[in-house]
Amino acid sequence: MDAIEVGILGATGVVGQQFVSRLARHPWFRVTWLAASERSQGKLYREVAPWRLAAPMPGTSAERTVEACVPGKGPKVVFSGLDASVAGDIEGAFAAAGHIVISNARNFRMDPLVPLLIPEINADHLKLLGEQRSSKGWTGAIVTNPNCSTIVLAMSLAPLRTFNIRAVVVSTMQAVSGAGYPGVPSLDILGNVVPFIGGEEEKMQSETLKILGTDGGRAPYQAVVSAHCNRVAVVDGHTMTVSVDFHSRPSIEDVAEAIRTFAGRPQELWLPSAPQPPIVLTTEPNRPQPRLDVDLGGGMAISVGRLRSCPVMHAKFVALGHNTIRGAAGAAILNAELMHAEALL
Amino acid sequence: MDAIEVGILGATGVVGQQFVSRLARHPWFRVTWLAASERSQGKLYREVAPWRLAAPMPGTSAERTVEACVPGKGPKVVFSGLDASVAGDIEGAFAAAGHIVISNARNFRMDPLVPLLIPEINADHLKLLGEQRSSKGWTGAIVTNPNCSTIVLAMSLAPLRTFNIRAVVVSTMQAVSGAGYPGVPSLDILGNVVPFIGGEEEKMQSETLKILGTDGGRAPYQAVVSAHCNRVAVVDGHTMTVSVDFHSRPSIEDVAEAIRTFAGRPQELWLPSAPQPPIVLTTEPNRPQPRLDVDLGGGMAISVGRLRSCPVMHAKFVALGHNTIRGAAGAAILNAELMHAEALL
Amino acid sequence: MDAIEVGILGATGVVGQQFVSRLARHPWFRVTWLAASERSQGKLYREVAPWRLAAPMPGTSAERTVEACVPGKGPKVVFSGLDASVAGDIEGAFAAAGHIVISNARNFRMDPLVPLLIPEINADHLKLLGEQRSSKGWTGAIVTNPNCSTIVLAMSLAPLRTFNIRAVVVSTMQAVSGAGYPGVPSLDILGNVVPFIGGEEEKMQSETLKILGTDGGRAPYQAVVSAHCNRVAVVDGHTMTVSVDFHSRPSIEDVAEAIRTFAGRPQELWLPSAPQPPIVLTTEPNRPQPRLDVDLGGGMAISVGRLRSCPVMHAKFVALGHNTIRGAAGAAILNAELMHAEALL
Amino acid sequence: MDAIEVGILGATGVVGQQFVSRLARHPWFRVTWLAASERSQGKLYREVAPWRLAAPMPGTSAERTVEACVPGKGPKVVFSGLDASVAGDIEGAFAAAGHIVISNARNFRMDPLVPLLIPEINADHLKLLGEQRSSKGWTGAIVTNPNCSTIVLAMSLAPLRTFNIRAVVVSTMQAVSGAGYPGVPSLDILGNVVPFIGGEEEKMQSETLKILGTDGGRAPYQAVVSAHCNRVAVVDGHTMTVSVDFHSRPSIEDVAEAIRTFAGRPQELWLPSAPQPPIVLTTEPNRPQPRLDVDLGGGMAISVGRLRSCPVMHAKFVALGHNTIRGAAGAAILNAELMHAEALL
Repeated sequence: MDAIEVGILGATGVVGQQFVSRLARHPWFRVTWLAASERSQGKLYREVAPWRLAAPMPGTSAERTVEACVPGKGPKVVFSGLDASVAGDIEGAFAAAGHIVISNARNFRMDPLVPLLIPEINADHLKLLGEQRSSKGWTGAIVTNPNCSTIVLAMSLAPLRTFNIRAVVVSTMQAVSGAGYPGVPSLDILGNVVPFIGGEEEKMQSETLKILGTDGGRAPYQAVVSAHCNRVAVVDGHTMTVSVDFHSRPSIEDVAEAIRTFAGRPQELWLPSAPQPPIVLTTEPNRPQPRLDVDLGGGMAISVGRLRSCPVMHAKFVALGHNTIRGAAGAAILNAELMHAEALL
Repeated sequence: MDAIEVGILGATGVVGQQFVSRLARHPWFRVTWLAASERSQGKLYREVAPWRLAAPMPGTSAERTVEACVPGKGPKVVFSGLDASVAGDIEGAFAAAGHIVISNARNFRMDPLVPLLIPEINADHLKLLGEQRSSKGWTGAIVTNPNCSTIVLAMSLAPLRTFNIRAVVVSTMQAVSGAGYPGVPSLDILGNVVPFIGGEEEKMQSETLKILGTDGGRAPYQAVVSAHCNRVAVVDGHTMTVSVDFHSRPSIEDVAEAIRTFAGRPQELWLPSAPQPPIVLTTEPNRPQPRLDVDLGGGMAISVGRLRSCPVMHAKFVALGHNTIRGAAGAAILNAELMHAEALL
Repeated sequence: MDAIEVGILGATGVVGQQFVSRLARHPWFRVTWLAASERSQGKLYREVAPWRLAAPMPGTSAERTVEACVPGKGPKVVFSGLDASVAGDIEGAFAAAGHIVISNARNFRMDPLVPLLIPEINADHLKLLGEQRSSKGWTGAIVTNPNCSTIVLAMSLAPLRTFNIRAVVVSTMQAVSGAGYPGVPSLDILGNVVPFIGGEEEKMQSETLKILGTDGGRAPYQAVVSAHCNRVAVVDGHTMTVSVDFHSRPSIEDVAEAIRTFAGRPQELWLPSAPQPPIVLTTEPNRPQPRLDVDLGGGMAISVGRLRSCPVMHAKFVALGHNTIRGAAGAAILNAELMHAEALL
Repeated sequence: MDAIEVGILGATGVVGQQFVSRLARHPWFRVTWLAASERSQGKLYREVAPWRLAAPMPGTSAERTVEACVPGKGPKVVFSGLDASVAGDIEGAFAAAGHIVISNARNFRMDPLVPLLIPEINADHLKLLGEQRSSKGWTGAIVTNPNCSTIVLAMSLAPLRTFNIRAVVVSTMQAVSGAGYPGVPSLDILGNVVPFIGGEEEKMQSETLKILGTDGGRAPYQAVVSAHCNRVAVVDGHTMTVSVDFHSRPSIEDVAEAIRTFAGRPQELWLPSAPQPPIVLTTEPNRPQPRLDVDLGGGMAISVGRLRSCPVMHAKFVALGHNTIRGAAGAAILNAELMHAEALL
């Protein structure tokens, strides 16, 4: 199979850098086009990307000339790490011009015709694309992945749909890398907790229900989510405590079994980025911990631990996921892999 | 008024050091007796106390000879910073021998005849002392203060009793100083979250109901508490997110007003350690934060912020308190102040 | 004595906030004028100052209307917390218009006619003011304090001048608060060391010699300083290791005695902000540490510890000081106190 | 080639765990024997090893029964992660009984007949083994690797021997993992610097000269080293600032070239753990940093950056290395690889 050429919108930003880094050795995709704001246009990627990753900049991208985000230019498939301030217009224009836009931006996530995709959970939401095209008059398409904290919560809840979730109270302890760069000032977080992240609670409360919903997410899942979002002094990895109330009355062992045996299309299809298993259920009393567990499944697995009865709701547990891999670039790449496997690219 | 002489059991430990430090300039109490394990006996305090506080060791205690924990020796009033492994026997023996033991240890907290005292909340629980003496045959008495995380939760819930609390889901982010010294290894907490603290969730779930209860705590408050306890990379200050369900249906403004106007016996009596007000309700969107707010009221005030509706329960908010001041030595000293003001010392 | 009215240039910035906070209860000075950029002009201080200090904003300043930085307006004495990008022009204009400018900015520090003042070390450098006025045609004056890391080093070296310092190798571990707000991104410093601070090494190497020099600093001290500057995950307090070579050959006990007995004009005059003693020589094997020692002398004392022989140079030790108090606003206030005591305000 | 069977002394400790983990996929060595204190004897490794590494415990070791540290048992080649309190006696007994002991303990490091080996620097020190055997009457042998901070310094200095080093002043910022587990209490290091590590400065000052010396280290290198050792809030990676004085007068470009072109026997022999190149010379102004650079060369490369003139000595720079890989288990494994390649196992 020939490699599929892909481009990156917003290639010089933090998420763009993660696309560049993670796609450098991808078995299916080859980055052949890097686009960013006009300021970077015409310069070499290594000259304009303020590289922030520990892994060195891939040589082929380093020497590539950055182009403008002009629809019609570049490969059919483009990943978008654009900032939300510009993603709406640019992604829409690219979709209109025939590009398949695999986006990490929040702009189209709640659009009823745009899949908010987690391949393990709602691969069937891709069926929206036909109606998306006809309704919007696009020859291309847009597919999005959720917010970094939402994705951890949604993955941990997905196996529990079988028990009919009624309500969820979640309290997060989120890593600073979720805020990009420069992001959180060190004076705010060293030896501290900041019990607020702008817009985050609203995203977790609404995106989760679309993801778990039916009819491409247009029929949201019938449950209520209450989120408390906090920033802590962790570099990578969003940890969260979750209490869940069900309509049915599963035993804790039933819940554990549902989590342990959970898998989805990426696992069936053995997609290159698919973690096997997608959720690791830990039994040690003090896990998961970001420093020890964030890289499970190459950063694509979600860890769940401390599963036990909740005196107020039915079950409670701790969930953890890598916010810049499973919660951003890795999520988008898995979305693209699924679309390729489903012959949608 | 002459100063009241007090002694300290377990004077060389971390809590004992806090008693020594905080009592050094107390307007009512004067430390005249320091007791610790046999190993320290007969030596100067400065030789045997591995001082861990930023404030320097008070000179008068530094030069004092440490004695053994022998009942009958030392002043009538003794503060106990003993470790739970020995506190049960020693505190009991001191109470039997006529001492008033103001204890920070957990051993007697859930004893139905021992007040688990937070003066703002349940000053009336001191009425247990008569029955405690007659039932146990003690000529002295034991009064305890709650666990460091419980005290923050209980204080934040106390004003809400008027709305008839039905259920509480709390998720903590606790400071390392709560674990004493050497306590939490740095490898466990640097850049990390540990989602487990042994025995802590059980204490929060049971102690809170005794504190808020009636008949000296023998009739526990009729509500259910579910706690998720986590350790984070903070030195001082336990932060927690709290969702509360009420039997009545107060508006958020009703809840805010109840918190803002809350006060108790320590405030009425203007006890020396009483914070005015006991709970600071913050309105900034991203507060309270341990680094900025932990020292409010000299470390004795509880901060509550981000009060808002909870989609699942009725109200949700963030609470913060200083775990080694309001949550330990400062709590015990406030207990002693109340007892003195009530002529119980 | 009536209070001396003072103004603050750059009052809304981090250093300006420290001036506002520290001067709120000053026995000699009263803040009556707050000036900042045009953007803040005409608004209440509490509306435009993004308050970053744990201590609450003083009420009188909170309700004060912020004015423009217009020379001739405001009191004769003004403290400057202006950013270096504008401090040069504004401070010069204020001095020309008759104001005494007590500046924390770097712009005039190396001007041969401007005192780079540390009152314990070079109070006599104030004699430059006469020549400063005549030469520059100012009716006012400018006095500066050193960079936050320089001040710790210079203080630790001052007592050693008696042994004729030949060379110094210093390696710093500097707090993030030295970089202001937002300052250092948390992604750069959590669990990390950044072995570079732009311009800092040059400042330590040149400012130190002017401070220790004679003839108002115009004859720099004849020694060589080599600085390695590093940022570490500390909030407040610059720690540094120092190796010193002397022309004379003092014993370590001689060096210790020189440090222990060091004092200067602020101590003689009992200035309000003068730490007594200015340098605390610690003997514990593992001190000074920022978390335990940074607040000594109200943040105005320098701690020196681990004084011992250096196999390569003669002596080596660890020095620590509070970078936003002794290294910024507190330093400027002490300068003003000295000038008042010397009848120069 | 058949795999070489190896054993591990002190297999349950932190260094022992690193041996188990790093040897699990080694191309030459196969762990077939795990030994620890009597307490663990007869139990499965997974039952008694308190696993602290992020990488999961290798399955084959997990199910292996731990044996006692009895000489004559186990394979000829044994790695020692024993604690210094017992390593002296046990390692000596194993060497006497014919085992080749590759030790990370400090006990025999300064023994004039025991190589203190860094294969890139002093592979020829292995010639001591003949005299070691005859003099001590051992049929086996002991080879040691240096302290974790020494190894970083020695590697950074090795290329500079060509300029005849006269003196070195080094100031370290060391990671907490260097102190083992539980090691450094979190209360000591969160938001703090501890400017003291017991015995560390002495080790750096003496071990370095033996390593760089001739005649198997019995003729120490003729230079003077002065070390300032500090602990900072970093998990992995010792960073240090280094000033060096030479007898010759190289230009900075000469020094850079010497570092860039440095290589040794491991690189010539392409040993499995040999980093290529052994020292990475960085040119970015703010590197190396532990969070970004500690894993270079699989944790076996040393990073050097900020190479520039020193006003006091000749050159100064920053060096960084992974303290638990290059500074402990990885170092010992590289030693064993060299010995195998030199037909000494």
